[in-house]
Amino acid sequence: MPVTALTFDTYGTLVDWRSSILSELDAWGRAMGRGPDQKREWERFLADWKSCYRAGMEKVNSGEWPWTTVDVIYRRRLDELLDTYGLADRPRGEIENLNRVWWRLHPWPDSVAGLTRLRAKYILSPLSNASFAGMVHLARFAHLPWDCIITAENAKWYKPRAEVYRTAMALLGKQPGETMMVAAHNYDLRAARANGMRTAFVPRPTEYGPGQTTDLEPEDDWDVVATDVEDLARLLGT
Amino acid sequence: MPVTALTFDTYGTLVDWRSSILSELDAWGRAMGRGPDQKREWERFLADWKSCYRAGMEKVNSGEWPWTTVDVIYRRRLDELLDTYGLADRPRGEIENLNRVWWRLHPWPDSVAGLTRLRAKYILSPLSNASFAGMVHLARFAHLPWDCIITAENAKWYKPRAEVYRTAMALLGKQPGETMMVAAHNYDLRAARANGMRTAFVPRPTEYGPGQTTDLEPEDDWDVVATDVEDLARLLGT
Repeated sequence: MPVTALTFDTYGTLVDWRSSILSELDAWGRAMGRGPDQKREWERFLADWKSCYRAGMEKVNSGEWPWTTVDVIYRRRLDELLDTYGLADRPRGEIENLNRVWWRLHPWPDSVAGLTRLRAKYILSPLSNASFAGMVHLARFAHLPWDCIITAENAKWYKPRAEVYRTAMALLGKQPGETMMVAAHNYDLRAARANGMRTAFVPRPTEYGPGQTTDLEPEDDWDVVATDVEDLARLLGT
Repeated sequence: MPVTALTFDTYGTLVDWRSSILSELDAWGRAMGRGPDQKREWERFLADWKSCYRAGMEKVNSGEWPWTTVDVIYRRRLDELLDTYGLADRPRGEIENLNRVWWRLHPWPDSVAGLTRLRAKYILSPLSNASFAGMVHLARFAHLPWDCIITAENAKWYKPRAEVYRTAMALLGKQPGETMMVAAHNYDLRAARANGMRTAFVPRPTEYGPGQTTDLEPEDDWDVVATDVEDLARLLGT
């Protein structure tokens, strides 16, 4: 059964969230008069902020929390961090704008060119743990040429729950063998494969910065291993 | 509260399903050796086929049927009609291909140009009773420049049920007053308004052919009344 639709993890796999956010934080810090030593502080802040992501999703997937978007998860954590990082006096609008930085992330240099090539032959959708609205805004910002948007919000569960992958296949009207999950994260491909999808690994060895130790290599015999999305387009015959 | 997202009815409002399908039926008839008198027969066939659409959706909305896509509703009706219209001997692949004609409908001449202009300022989504997969394929075929796809399938109810409009607003992360429903059908705008959305009427006086008697005029004081989608783009400042 030939693959006719590709679903993509997005944060990390297609967009460089860390550099994008550090760059915005740096500009924000300068605008509020912070000195040149702020870079390390923003790195700590971002790591602290991001740490709520998987923890929050696990609370949803365990049933401890009802469905909660990552936008809300990030906002709650942001409010907790304001004091620690000397941001409690910033105007509310600036904090709201900061929380939406996850909607303004720059693609890796190969992402848009690779997706554009792939779209000539395949139906392309994100399959992200983002909110649906967040993914709509990110696609506009980063010019990601999707055929449609599907996220965890369509299933009201988070990856790696089976419901997310199954919802995507049902909405696309595809059998598992007709779809391929593309991700920079082995855990995502393991769950996709467990639900019958084909798998493609695209490593992003600097997603977490220069000292990254995870997901540097494929951890299983994924159907395709590409160096980036343009290489994936080549390997998939586009 | 300014409108930031537009949701569009699609069959009839953006694509000319009747002419598109009659043209395919005509070509199919010629290929199977039918004579020049087939035009009226295909018009009767299409009216007969289409008649299942609202009836099937009402069965879902009343709870008589579980969620059933229009693709399945059309396919069941098609199977019922094959004998009557002398099509029972056609290969199965031809019948399956015919059922997917709803994924291959041509846009009205103003649709793509108007949507392209509107997209510069607004988030654009269909809000159709189509299946999600059907709307993905139709968007590719007709080059409809959506930001995302939302259909009745995301709610598992059909318009005019409130759940469909509310699902769209929730997925888009919008308050009712920030969204505008665009349709050629007054019933759709009545339901959108009842759910707090703004409304735009775009008449399609030949959707049902030269003798159309319904939806020729706005039946309420809709927020915007445009002559076509390019006119809508002009009226909405794009």
